Amino acid sequence: MLAFSVDSTPYAWPFDGAFTPQNTALVIIDMQADFCGEGGYVDTMGYDIALTRAPIAPIQSVLMRMRELGFPIIHTREGHRPDLSDLPANKRWRSKRMQAEIGSEGPCGRILVRGEAGWEIIPELAPLPGEAIIDKPGKGSFYATDLELILRSQGIANLILTGITTDVCVHTTLREANDRGFECLVLADCCAATEQHHHDAAISMIHMQGGIFGAVSNAATLLDALG
Amino acid sequence: MLAFSVDSTPYAWPFDGAFTPQNTALVIIDMQADFCGEGGYVDTMGYDIALTRAPIAPIQSVLMRMRELGFPIIHTREGHRPDLSDLPANKRWRSKRMQAEIGSEGPCGRILVRGEAGWEIIPELAPLPGEAIIDKPGKGSFYATDLELILRSQGIANLILTGITTDVCVHTTLREANDRGFECLVLADCCAATEQHHHDAAISMIHMQGGIFGAVSNAATLLDALG
Amino acid sequence: MLAFSVDSTPYAWPFDGAFTPQNTALVIIDMQADFCGEGGYVDTMGYDIALTRAPIAPIQSVLMRMRELGFPIIHTREGHRPDLSDLPANKRWRSKRMQAEIGSEGPCGRILVRGEAGWEIIPELAPLPGEAIIDKPGKGSFYATDLELILRSQGIANLILTGITTDVCVHTTLREANDRGFECLVLADCCAATEQHHHDAAISMIHMQGGIFGAVSNAATLLDALG
Amino acid sequence: MLAFSVDSTPYAWPFDGAFTPQNTALVIIDMQADFCGEGGYVDTMGYDIALTRAPIAPIQSVLMRMRELGFPIIHTREGHRPDLSDLPANKRWRSKRMQAEIGSEGPCGRILVRGEAGWEIIPELAPLPGEAIIDKPGKGSFYATDLELILRSQGIANLILTGITTDVCVHTTLREANDRGFECLVLADCCAATEQHHHDAAISMIHMQGGIFGAVSNAATLLDALG
Repeated sequence: MLAFSVDSTPYAWPFDGAFTPQNTALVIIDMQADFCGEGGYVDTMGYDIALTRAPIAPIQSVLMRMRELGFPIIHTREGHRPDLSDLPANKRWRSKRMQAEIGSEGPCGRILVRGEAGWEIIPELAPLPGEAIIDKPGKGSFYATDLELILRSQGIANLILTGITTDVCVHTTLREANDRGFECLVLADCCAATEQHHHDAAISMIHMQGGIFGAVSNAATLLDALG
Repeated sequence: MLAFSVDSTPYAWPFDGAFTPQNTALVIIDMQADFCGEGGYVDTMGYDIALTRAPIAPIQSVLMRMRELGFPIIHTREGHRPDLSDLPANKRWRSKRMQAEIGSEGPCGRILVRGEAGWEIIPELAPLPGEAIIDKPGKGSFYATDLELILRSQGIANLILTGITTDVCVHTTLREANDRGFECLVLADCCAATEQHHHDAAISMIHMQGGIFGAVSNAATLLDALG
Repeated sequence: MLAFSVDSTPYAWPFDGAFTPQNTALVIIDMQADFCGEGGYVDTMGYDIALTRAPIAPIQSVLMRMRELGFPIIHTREGHRPDLSDLPANKRWRSKRMQAEIGSEGPCGRILVRGEAGWEIIPELAPLPGEAIIDKPGKGSFYATDLELILRSQGIANLILTGITTDVCVHTTLREANDRGFECLVLADCCAATEQHHHDAAISMIHMQGGIFGAVSNAATLLDALG
Repeated sequence: MLAFSVDSTPYAWPFDGAFTPQNTALVIIDMQADFCGEGGYVDTMGYDIALTRAPIAPIQSVLMRMRELGFPIIHTREGHRPDLSDLPANKRWRSKRMQAEIGSEGPCGRILVRGEAGWEIIPELAPLPGEAIIDKPGKGSFYATDLELILRSQGIANLILTGITTDVCVHTTLREANDRGFECLVLADCCAATEQHHHDAAISMIHMQGGIFGAVSNAATLLDALG
């Protein structure tokens, strides 16, 4: 049986010595046009999408290798129902203040609405048939979704987290997973934030108290470990 | 403002005197071909679908009137992802014992799988654009779904429950809703079970302890109340 | 390693052939004075507590043997915070209609309030140190509690359910557990309802569709299986 | 009726113009000896508790005034059951690496265990009778607790968050609350982290995208607003 361990900080991951394609999933968070594409939500708000596009190549390398080895792959998408019935009033109001109201028409279709062009996962990281896609209305991938059921039903105990943005959706998912006992590894160069210092701080926070939310590594080190 | 109250047992519903299209939703549970159509899951297991089809006409009458009055309408569908990653092993095993394995090919496509013909809501009760559809992997409509978020975001406090089957998915949803403080009304003739005595008992149970899960009425009485 | 299987209907439990003290817990639901004691909530509402006291002896026999074999034991208690901040308004209103308002003074102290005499687990089934007690505000043992975390953290996949009442708290817990993929066995004579026909129907419902919520057995048969 | 608004960044809070003692709670997170007391968990790990003690006085001033005005007060405590049945294996392992194993004996009793001296809320911020205390096994106050039920049952829509640590338990709770639609205000000087730069970054992150998790103010500004 394939079993791996990876160099990471503040401890070699996973804590219990080895991970396998049977008990470990790669999670790719919100690599949607709205967050890293031209004319998407983040671009419309005026952030530099060069930052949120930087993880694309490292994620591709990890994704290709983990697919070859048979690891389960899970993609997430943030977005709302076309009627916006799942959109909290304060979330809508804040996006309007930023001139990027959720549900309004933008260059990539209605902003953060399911089924629109901006909401799609970017072609470079398109899911393959059989890879789970989690549609989530919030920042956390566990809230109001079937993610935990999928993980428990398949005996998955370890999560390798990638995607955007580090400080918002990646960290919220990391925290939800950690409270539920999942063992998490964040690949720093496979994540990015809308501000570099927030990315750096979010990665640094993971190291507190012996790895309070898990451990941190990067694409090349994981690929080395996977052989 | 429109405000209503309905004759019901063991108390006139809702408990606090009045319901409106602003704070009350009609929920139609699992009126899918798999549960009441020829060649669907329930038919394949050998149950008489005349029972589970009986609520179609009463639900239609309630649905038409509540649409006219502007009540939010919520439909649910039980079903699993095509890769069955959200299917607990024991649920699959039990369906196989019944010669109706979830995920296997049946007369209406793969049994209880999303996107298949058997999984579709029946044409008589087809959702209109803008009506929420909750896709759920289990019996309860709250577990692993965004239903509670939708209800809270819209200020919905009262639920009128209909659909199939009374003792399984309707009752599980009723119990989840009740524990969360939602005020529930079950329309007895808009529900049905695979065994009549289970339907009767499920309706009777609601009356315990002063209405332990809510109240019970029927389509005609509700239509009277709605004027 | 100890491994067991038990005669049950509609299939021998568990579905995957064997259960052990490592992956199986005994759950004893709401055996509190309020539900089966003189002057408690159920007694105050006018129900015959001879019914809800009948399971005490069978549960004792199962509890003793499962303790000897080292199975984890989990007790639940329904009750509310003394300030009633966790009490939905409709639940309070219904109890008042029954002349047994939650939070009011009764013969066993404030009805259904944590810390009061009526809320305590009856002495015949008193928890031992190290046995988990789940305090729950609703009927289901999973809602608003840490039960799922405890089960997942200990690798528990199978639940043997006992307690009161069959149609309300036992069935709600059973349904929540089943949707999450836990494999459940209900011991019929270790449960009871406030109306015998509701107990019978609740047990019968479990048998639908190949064991839609799990399987059913009784104390003597389980004790035989445990040797 | 009392109604307030507070100067805050990046927008005046709350988003919809006014908050009242009826719809707003003060939440004080984990002000326990284990996180800010001598000999507690954080002290044992070697962090400087002068940082985590700094918010005590500002929280006291806010707490006193909000009590006077009749706002609901909610305290949280992180801790585990004495048998550690709710403690994920990786959380235990990490604390052991830090020479502060959860469940082991420390200067304030068993580390992070309910009922021990280190787990108690510090006397300066002791809860009064009738103030809710949420016992949580994780970092987030919503996971595996009855917090959401309490908030919904009382019609609370707005949360004013204080406590420790900013980057861990305060931020996890903030994220959970925000995904559920609660409108949150963080009082920066009423929070602290084990590293100052993590506190600063955690506060800064809230300002992204128009206030992605809510708004930020401080004790004096809130007291001004409360008159």
